[in-house]
Amino acid sequence: MTSSDDSPHGRITRRRLLGAGAAGGLVVAGFAGGRATASEPTDPEQSSVPFHGTHQAGITTPAQNRLHFAAFDLTTDRRSDLQGLLQEWTEASRLMVQGKPAGPDNSEPLLPPDDTGEAVGLGPASLTITFGLGPGVFDRRFGLAAKRPDQLEPLPALPGDELDQSISGGDLCIQACADDPQVAFHAVRNLTKIAQGRAVMRWCQLGFGRTAKTGADQETPRNLMGFKDGTNNILNDDRGSLDDFVWAGGEGPDWMNGGSYLVARRIRMMIEPWDRTFLQEQEEVFGRTKSSGAPLGGESENDPVDLQAQGPDGRPLIRVDAHIRQAAPAMNGGQKILRRGYSFTDGFDTVRGQLDAGLFFICFQRDPHKQFVPIQQRLGQNDSLNEYIVHTGSALFAIPPGVGEKNGYVGQGLF
Amino acid sequence: MTSSDDSPHGRITRRRLLGAGAAGGLVVAGFAGGRATASEPTDPEQSSVPFHGTHQAGITTPAQNRLHFAAFDLTTDRRSDLQGLLQEWTEASRLMVQGKPAGPDNSEPLLPPDDTGEAVGLGPASLTITFGLGPGVFDRRFGLAAKRPDQLEPLPALPGDELDQSISGGDLCIQACADDPQVAFHAVRNLTKIAQGRAVMRWCQLGFGRTAKTGADQETPRNLMGFKDGTNNILNDDRGSLDDFVWAGGEGPDWMNGGSYLVARRIRMMIEPWDRTFLQEQEEVFGRTKSSGAPLGGESENDPVDLQAQGPDGRPLIRVDAHIRQAAPAMNGGQKILRRGYSFTDGFDTVRGQLDAGLFFICFQRDPHKQFVPIQQRLGQNDSLNEYIVHTGSALFAIPPGVGEKNGYVGQGLF
Repeated sequence: MTSSDDSPHGRITRRRLLGAGAAGGLVVAGFAGGRATASEPTDPEQSSVPFHGTHQAGITTPAQNRLHFAAFDLTTDRRSDLQGLLQEWTEASRLMVQGKPAGPDNSEPLLPPDDTGEAVGLGPASLTITFGLGPGVFDRRFGLAAKRPDQLEPLPALPGDELDQSISGGDLCIQACADDPQVAFHAVRNLTKIAQGRAVMRWCQLGFGRTAKTGADQETPRNLMGFKDGTNNILNDDRGSLDDFVWAGGEGPDWMNGGSYLVARRIRMMIEPWDRTFLQEQEEVFGRTKSSGAPLGGESENDPVDLQAQGPDGRPLIRVDAHIRQAAPAMNGGQKILRRGYSFTDGFDTVRGQLDAGLFFICFQRDPHKQFVPIQQRLGQNDSLNEYIVHTGSALFAIPPGVGEKNGYVGQGLF
Repeated sequence: MTSSDDSPHGRITRRRLLGAGAAGGLVVAGFAGGRATASEPTDPEQSSVPFHGTHQAGITTPAQNRLHFAAFDLTTDRRSDLQGLLQEWTEASRLMVQGKPAGPDNSEPLLPPDDTGEAVGLGPASLTITFGLGPGVFDRRFGLAAKRPDQLEPLPALPGDELDQSISGGDLCIQACADDPQVAFHAVRNLTKIAQGRAVMRWCQLGFGRTAKTGADQETPRNLMGFKDGTNNILNDDRGSLDDFVWAGGEGPDWMNGGSYLVARRIRMMIEPWDRTFLQEQEEVFGRTKSSGAPLGGESENDPVDLQAQGPDGRPLIRVDAHIRQAAPAMNGGQKILRRGYSFTDGFDTVRGQLDAGLFFICFQRDPHKQFVPIQQRLGQNDSLNEYIVHTGSALFAIPPGVGEKNGYVGQGLF
């Protein structure tokens, strides 16, 4: 098996497989003798990311522009149904990440087409589909209780939670990311269709954002408060940190080896009060300069955060309740998480009289109870950002390891 | 004045104007000696569309990938407030479509920044901002009743309506379209902020979609039923049809000359029953082949629709209740509208147990009561597609003509 994270992005167009006139060949887009430079971006619609690998794709894959996240409740108590669903989801995903329809039968007049069709003519758009198993998979229904990882213990109540249960939890999850919203929607819709009779969608969340580059050149996107958010994240080529903080190892069950744990938090931002706040206060709340993203006292975004630095008045340059101080690994026993969040906006909230918008925070880690939970306990109690945010949704999923190029299915180690 | 619709897209990067270290120059992205071919797309993030022109941009502008539409209720009854708001919205829009912050003051520590900052570092992404005035502008509040165009008479009840008033109507509207969702969000958010004390958002709608090319090469995107939707739309370089069907002329008040009328309809698709329908039935409902988009009996998408053609059984090849028959200009007194809709998905509807998704239909025309209304009356009564859709939102706005490059504001002719 090769890791999907190492593989160069291939190029392949979505074949028009509906109907009899389908053209079967791959069309390779490229530069007809030209040179690719920074001002000559390749067509992101035609890039593809392999589904298979040591780890599932969509974790260290450079963040695509769009997220469609969905959580499902299982409606069956038959283990074979769960197993069959994971098999069928894997098969359909292998096809869709190549820009192909979700199933083969799309031209039989007297059958519903396997594929819903709205992505025909579109490229793979770097689609990744990442599957997760929630705590409910390990309840009494499926006889899998003995295989539940300790790491999947439900999250405790956390300070500042105002959770809406209808957009929290779930037995299964799909994180679909792509550079085209119609491609991400198509993936979730077809997987939802496949699940009929076995699982129903519980909630879903759309998101947008971007990190254009990989490794040390990774660009930090701005969140909807206008600040660069995610500086000092684990870099996606930092093998040592990924092994230390992201990939599950011998501390848990064998079937999770090479997997990870996903925590999702829907963090609503109080946009209106924030927009009325002075620039200086905004910068002190984050501990960073808004324009450059540099930590206060520094010059540029990636300067080290000096938590000891004092201003001329002898007080800390980075306030004791500043977000970057409270979130710093140094304040959290050296713990780190791999963040992969997306901004969201879900229309207008007439109750609060402002845009319903914020950050759909996603992070991956080896053990949420040693990583996300203590970090969030500290942030929820001490971070001055709390005045402007509220956590409205929460979920936890085990992300099984990746599958082989032609065999295996996600979660197979469980059965 | 030049028309924004004729102008080639300029290229300009969003300047980093927050903070003191702002760089002021334009950066022109281009091909360093290379040739642009279909496989060498330019960076859509760096394209810009002029705000000024005979007509407002965003009507015949090739549809960008993302929509953020917002409707507002006026909270003032002072005419000068309305006038001032339209002036300030115009000024901020002139800046934002160039990729600049919404206002100049963004580095004063003891003031809230003019611009909310989340688009700093992003390009203009072909942002267009199109403003509209709803019927409420002409009620008793502002002394403008005598200037109300007859064309802005509220829409009658239409067959099949299941309208939710909380996502219908509005005194003002903003249609923000861009190739980057964060750029479109930024525009709506900053214009909402500017409106404080004069107007509050009533509802908003996000959308996605694409038509990659202009003129006769325009690609027809697929809707979420998997069908090409919008074939036989008025082409954006068809001056004759635009003058005949889209641009307001001498039939209405002078201040609307060169403007248009926008009808928005949120059309929810019943995704689950549709996905269980046989391919043949789907194709008969639309009257088109799903794969190619060709009208039944034709070979390719742009073949003329032959409403007389009969099958071997002597029955019409295109069913009497087929969508393309009922929507055809020949069935509607030759009337046409300029459609510019976007697909939407707004999460999961737990009541109906399916994805809340569909088409946010937008059309432009000279007179909704002679164009959209009779077409929709026919469709609502006869179109077999009605079994799978429901109209849940509706709005009507007068779209004033465009403004000069350096002077004037949208709606100025009213005052």
